[in-house]
Amino acid sequence: MKKFALLLLLQITFGYSQTNDDEQMLNAIYKSALTESHCYSWLDDLSNKIGQRLSGSKGAEQAVLYTKQQMETLGLDKVYLQEVMVPKWVRGKKETAYLKVADQIYNFPICALGMSVATPKNGISANIIEVKSLDELKLLGSNKVKGKIIFFNRPMNPEFIETFRAYGSCVDQRSSGAREAGKLGAVGVIVRSMNLRLDDFPHTGMTNYGDTAIEDRIPAAAISTNGAEKLSKLLKNNSNSSFYFNQSCQAFEDVLSYNVIGEITGSEHPERIMVVGGHLDSWDLGDGSQDDGAGCVQSMTVLELFKKINYKPKNTIRVVLFMNEENGVKGGLKYEEESAKNKENHIFALESDSGGFTPRGFSIESDEKNYQKIASWKNLFEPYLIHIFIQGHSGTDIGPIKSNKIVKVGLQPDSQRYFDYHHAANDTFDSVNKRELELGAATMTSLMYLIDKYGIE
Amino acid sequence: MKKFALLLLLQITFGYSQTNDDEQMLNAIYKSALTESHCYSWLDDLSNKIGQRLSGSKGAEQAVLYTKQQMETLGLDKVYLQEVMVPKWVRGKKETAYLKVADQIYNFPICALGMSVATPKNGISANIIEVKSLDELKLLGSNKVKGKIIFFNRPMNPEFIETFRAYGSCVDQRSSGAREAGKLGAVGVIVRSMNLRLDDFPHTGMTNYGDTAIEDRIPAAAISTNGAEKLSKLLKNNSNSSFYFNQSCQAFEDVLSYNVIGEITGSEHPERIMVVGGHLDSWDLGDGSQDDGAGCVQSMTVLELFKKINYKPKNTIRVVLFMNEENGVKGGLKYEEESAKNKENHIFALESDSGGFTPRGFSIESDEKNYQKIASWKNLFEPYLIHIFIQGHSGTDIGPIKSNKIVKVGLQPDSQRYFDYHHAANDTFDSVNKRELELGAATMTSLMYLIDKYGIE
Repeated sequence: MKKFALLLLLQITFGYSQTNDDEQMLNAIYKSALTESHCYSWLDDLSNKIGQRLSGSKGAEQAVLYTKQQMETLGLDKVYLQEVMVPKWVRGKKETAYLKVADQIYNFPICALGMSVATPKNGISANIIEVKSLDELKLLGSNKVKGKIIFFNRPMNPEFIETFRAYGSCVDQRSSGAREAGKLGAVGVIVRSMNLRLDDFPHTGMTNYGDTAIEDRIPAAAISTNGAEKLSKLLKNNSNSSFYFNQSCQAFEDVLSYNVIGEITGSEHPERIMVVGGHLDSWDLGDGSQDDGAGCVQSMTVLELFKKINYKPKNTIRVVLFMNEENGVKGGLKYEEESAKNKENHIFALESDSGGFTPRGFSIESDEKNYQKIASWKNLFEPYLIHIFIQGHSGTDIGPIKSNKIVKVGLQPDSQRYFDYHHAANDTFDSVNKRELELGAATMTSLMYLIDKYGIE
Repeated sequence: MKKFALLLLLQITFGYSQTNDDEQMLNAIYKSALTESHCYSWLDDLSNKIGQRLSGSKGAEQAVLYTKQQMETLGLDKVYLQEVMVPKWVRGKKETAYLKVADQIYNFPICALGMSVATPKNGISANIIEVKSLDELKLLGSNKVKGKIIFFNRPMNPEFIETFRAYGSCVDQRSSGAREAGKLGAVGVIVRSMNLRLDDFPHTGMTNYGDTAIEDRIPAAAISTNGAEKLSKLLKNNSNSSFYFNQSCQAFEDVLSYNVIGEITGSEHPERIMVVGGHLDSWDLGDGSQDDGAGCVQSMTVLELFKKINYKPKNTIRVVLFMNEENGVKGGLKYEEESAKNKENHIFALESDSGGFTPRGFSIESDEKNYQKIASWKNLFEPYLIHIFIQGHSGTDIGPIKSNKIVKVGLQPDSQRYFDYHHAANDTFDSVNKRELELGAATMTSLMYLIDKYGIE
């Protein structure tokens, strides 16, 4: 009774209403996703037949062809590739690292951070200094930093309930550590992996040298969380020990790659575009199932489900599998460039790039009016246990899209396990649960349906 | 503004209020759980040092001693064992099964269902008939069933969002299949595993012969979901093929075991008892981390967290680790028997027995007034992403507890992956995520705190 009253209040206040039709439509969407979609088998192929898809790699090339082919089986109105030049960075041989304390050698699992320069061929050896933050580094000053390796060891904060918040407040060490330490004369950087769990996987991810000249760039690597704990402990009693690491990663000229695009033309407003997407590239250590194979196949499933339930959208529904989110966002930038050139009108964009776990809701980037409109659909999503409707960041790839009026949304899956896998060798297919992945796809399709039907304000 | 208005409405209507104190208390509880609790390391010991804990087994005995010892380190007012006689059933050697089609042998992964009788020493061979339900079995009648092995092959329905609902509408095949098929003269039963995923793990679980005389009981085994699919396909073209299976499981006389109990005496109402618990026994194939090691260590953590944040409960808080939920519920029944004998007054009972995944909310067994009271705390739980407050089943072990006035609640974790592991060899420690487990413990502790503070109606 109270719930009904509240609903009535919302409907009177905002003039939105949902009908039984919507309930039935969402029911059909979730049912189709859970019983007949290709979502999981697409991910199986992408992860297990193709594998890692770092920009410029063989895997990325194969993934472009594979997803284009699969979209061509869906009876869409258009499937095409959009050219984009992307960085090509190659890890080279397996990295090695150790601490030497007197005659004892302690080995550590490390991996080069994405876009890092290599060490000299025989590696680097230097004293290592542990800091918890960029501020602490700056306080040390160049006198103490010069000639040293800097070890950034601030853990992700376990107290945040949303793990993305812990990531956001920690990742500056990885993204800016090498740049800032280099300015002070350090010779290398070791960064604690962005992982809430204690384990042996080093997690890569982009390091950003900014405008540092190439010859002034210092090599940067991630160390596993267990490794970071052990190294820190050893350094407490052996502060003058020598740390060694060796990596042979290399950057090449940019190469041609593609965003993969498929669309259903709108029946009433073909000129109004609603984008749904994820990024097709991944890091090179695992197979990128969570980041972001999941988001790609879920986005493709939106079109598949519309076809299966025979829903003909009023607006143009466009799936975009963006290339190069991980180390450049060139795909997202190129997409916006082309869109501006063609004077396209985007009304909505939805991204899934937070893993393939049980969907919990949406992070909505819009004005208050459209936020309230989407939030007023909460009751429709309740049977599917979708409950998070917050205002916040939507997605990196859809970030560049500009339009006169556009609402952007990010799918929010359960985030507790995400950073166990993120950018690491264990981001593999077995970490994805079929039902969780499918529920995410259904949740995205449902929102696309509601926006298509009711428009934005 | 609207949320505030609703809150006000609830407070006016029901006269409940929450203060900043409560917000701070929940904050302290979650923080402590995520940063300093023993929850995960206890589960590590229980799973990896002790392992499976089927009633009457060595593991169950060790688990009783271990959890008692651990509770003794918490500075509780009482820690004790409650004697209970439990069934002892032993699986024996690894089961085997195959279908013979002409000269070809197709092997299948099976496991005896819990409490099943053995096959004769050399196994059973018979024609096998597939049915989807007990109704279909009955329609066949004894003429067609006599001398046959019955293959129950109705899959769990993937369309249900809550997987426990799919389980509930499917498990009659496992619990009653052997009894009903036996009545019609079948010689054995093979049941599709209660698992939404297609894989190679057979899932055990109790089969219930009811009042069937021991000599009339027929052996029952579970087959993996992949096995069930393959067997069904083979039978379509080879309906007269002979199926063979062999299992050597055995039931012994009941043996002495224990419920493990620890408590903090209430400072104001020591006679009012609030129970929190899970079950210490597990099936024998995995190590029972999800079912129900998780619930046990979470329950112990409730007491640990109260101690750590220095909260002194008004009512007596009693952790009960029940023995024998899986094949008899003797621990739950014994607990109520002793409680009635001692004229104890229970006001509240909370059980965690749905896995150690991210907590989503509560299933509340109470009158409307107390349900509304608990639901009015929804806003306090919102920062922790706890959103399910439904009326429904609480828990099997706390089921028998009777009291003049009692509210019972079951913790509801995310259920999507639960039946991938339930009663199977892959229910092991690696399937549990530390943060998810700890969030569950904090959610339970928070509810215990609120009930302790505000009482029941």
